Amino acid sequence: MYDTMNIGILGGGQLGRMLLQEGANYPVTTWVMENDPHCPAAHLCHHFVTGDIKNYEDVLAFGKHLDVITIEIEAVNVEALEQLEAMGKVIIPKPSVLKTIKNKVLQKEFYKAQNIPSPAFYITQTRAELAALSSFLPAVHKIGEGGYDGRGVQIMQTASDLEKGFDSPSVLEKMVDIQSEIAITVAIGQQGEMVIFPTVEMIFDPYLNLLDYQLCPAKMEEKVQWKAEAIAIQTAKSFGSAGIFAIEMLVDKNGDVWVNETAPRVHNSGHHTIEAHITSQYDILWRIMMKYPLGSTAMLFPSALVNLIGAAGFSGTPHYNGLEKLLGLENVYVHLYGKGQTKPGRKMGHVTILGKDRVELIMKSRQIKEQIAVEATT
Amino acid sequence: MYDTMNIGILGGGQLGRMLLQEGANYPVTTWVMENDPHCPAAHLCHHFVTGDIKNYEDVLAFGKHLDVITIEIEAVNVEALEQLEAMGKVIIPKPSVLKTIKNKVLQKEFYKAQNIPSPAFYITQTRAELAALSSFLPAVHKIGEGGYDGRGVQIMQTASDLEKGFDSPSVLEKMVDIQSEIAITVAIGQQGEMVIFPTVEMIFDPYLNLLDYQLCPAKMEEKVQWKAEAIAIQTAKSFGSAGIFAIEMLVDKNGDVWVNETAPRVHNSGHHTIEAHITSQYDILWRIMMKYPLGSTAMLFPSALVNLIGAAGFSGTPHYNGLEKLLGLENVYVHLYGKGQTKPGRKMGHVTILGKDRVELIMKSRQIKEQIAVEATT
Repeated sequence: MYDTMNIGILGGGQLGRMLLQEGANYPVTTWVMENDPHCPAAHLCHHFVTGDIKNYEDVLAFGKHLDVITIEIEAVNVEALEQLEAMGKVIIPKPSVLKTIKNKVLQKEFYKAQNIPSPAFYITQTRAELAALSSFLPAVHKIGEGGYDGRGVQIMQTASDLEKGFDSPSVLEKMVDIQSEIAITVAIGQQGEMVIFPTVEMIFDPYLNLLDYQLCPAKMEEKVQWKAEAIAIQTAKSFGSAGIFAIEMLVDKNGDVWVNETAPRVHNSGHHTIEAHITSQYDILWRIMMKYPLGSTAMLFPSALVNLIGAAGFSGTPHYNGLEKLLGLENVYVHLYGKGQTKPGRKMGHVTILGKDRVELIMKSRQIKEQIAVEATT
Repeated sequence: MYDTMNIGILGGGQLGRMLLQEGANYPVTTWVMENDPHCPAAHLCHHFVTGDIKNYEDVLAFGKHLDVITIEIEAVNVEALEQLEAMGKVIIPKPSVLKTIKNKVLQKEFYKAQNIPSPAFYITQTRAELAALSSFLPAVHKIGEGGYDGRGVQIMQTASDLEKGFDSPSVLEKMVDIQSEIAITVAIGQQGEMVIFPTVEMIFDPYLNLLDYQLCPAKMEEKVQWKAEAIAIQTAKSFGSAGIFAIEMLVDKNGDVWVNETAPRVHNSGHHTIEAHITSQYDILWRIMMKYPLGSTAMLFPSALVNLIGAAGFSGTPHYNGLEKLLGLENVYVHLYGKGQTKPGRKMGHVTILGKDRVELIMKSRQIKEQIAVEATT
């Protein structure tokens, strides 16, 4: 444990922003690197460095005078982090974890090697290889590297969809007959100590195939809950690194649980922990980095999470239409990310709702989604 | 209501720091002025300006391109704020309020003129005038301007204490036979809308005469509670300004309630609202400034507040002895203010404790006060 530390974050988006809001409670000097000096986290750190988080030299120069380096996005230069690790810097999560996770082909192969239940798959190197796999459909084609926020994912129902596949190393993953989509956040400290957050459940819009809202706790049979927690812990531990791990899982109609993806960092599925849990995911990441006790993940209130997404048809300076009305509701917490520009589908903020039960939370989430829209003034 | 605003804070201490942590949820560009570029709030705003908040030119230059200006300490240049107000800037609270409150003589005369119950008093211009007032003792001599955090206050039990009085305009206030010390925070919006927080109770160390810890809600008879709330509302409203008003009151053995002092800003007695109430005092100040609905002040949990004060005998780079142990406790929230230097009595941080009842909170507060000490490494 230190009295003051220099800690750097690679990436300056909303995750960095919320991390820094929480970091102001601890004795830490904060550094952020990002290429946009107006990014959401830029003004909340002690030292902002304009630089390319994918560039070896930039990441090395940023990290070499720091005690601890973390990330808020996987798309960073891992080689530089490996070099920094060799120099004795603490990297949370370890570069080896990022290497595995940022490439979906390696991530899938890792799950297989570790006996972590994850949907059946084929690796494809070229689009042409897909032709032979029509009997494997329905499936999802996921590009190995470069996919983000819905890009790089292609759903394939019938053979005619195969031509939409990616012409680079990708995973063709068997489609699961989904009962529900859930996520569990696991936090692992530098001494191997571990805490686990209650399970959250994602409710998707059946027409738009977009996250509609998220509920915590998830509604699950007890034995499925136990299975999901065991798998989440197994998955997080298998990476052999300290850090926050958001394990996204699919529950099928048989009650089987499959790991869909892991994010080795603070994650959208944990935003609600700021208000609804004793210790938030952001707080716990500081505790991990500073070797403090991890704290309690216990739920204070059931909660829902609604993302505020740039509305279709609007690009430019954001206007939060309905914000005033939203702020008039009780037990509703608004987080805007301070992004200078909105565009359709961009994550511009989120709303956390505290409620007494699931019915109230669902009703309020739907109401809020109708009440606010991120439009543009220009 | 605006989509983005430029809002400035005069002063960069811990109150500004916590205000800015909360401000990152809103569409606002933040400015801070303070003479120390390493002050607690300096790195959490968009634009930090090094300047003297007591200097007319500095305050004017700082404020003239902003939409709204607020303060986190009363000791600012009021004339510059009056000039900015005349230019159409929104000043929260109004400069007239600061003028009244920052001088204890004017503050006392204001309470009298407004029929706000406040202990009986004499105004003294010189130390010599005190000699004639020995029959008024026991009393407290408070210097009109320049007192802060215990300085500028002299308790006078007997005639021999009169020579310790201040030789400049001061208030000699009749000592109240105190049953309890309480505070109520009242928030008033720009349209005159108002919300009020539950009453907090300060527990003082009888030996050191220092705040030991603070509890919310206060333990009071219902009719005293009603009286206190009515007086707090009357006091806050009487200033005729939007803002946050922390009304510190004394309850005497007869159950009478007396206004001791008002702070027209976020205040130490409201720190616990960050975790223990639906909307914190910091959140509400943003809502006032941005003309949003004020939100709910309802209590989520009973809470206690322990200030972390620089320990006697230690000056220099702070070392938070016992911090790790403290962070291992459940329902305990630590806020360190990031001050580079500790000295005896300096406010270096605070701890908020959530608990199920008063007994648990008192026990935990005492335990925490024994567990942590702000010492120095050098």
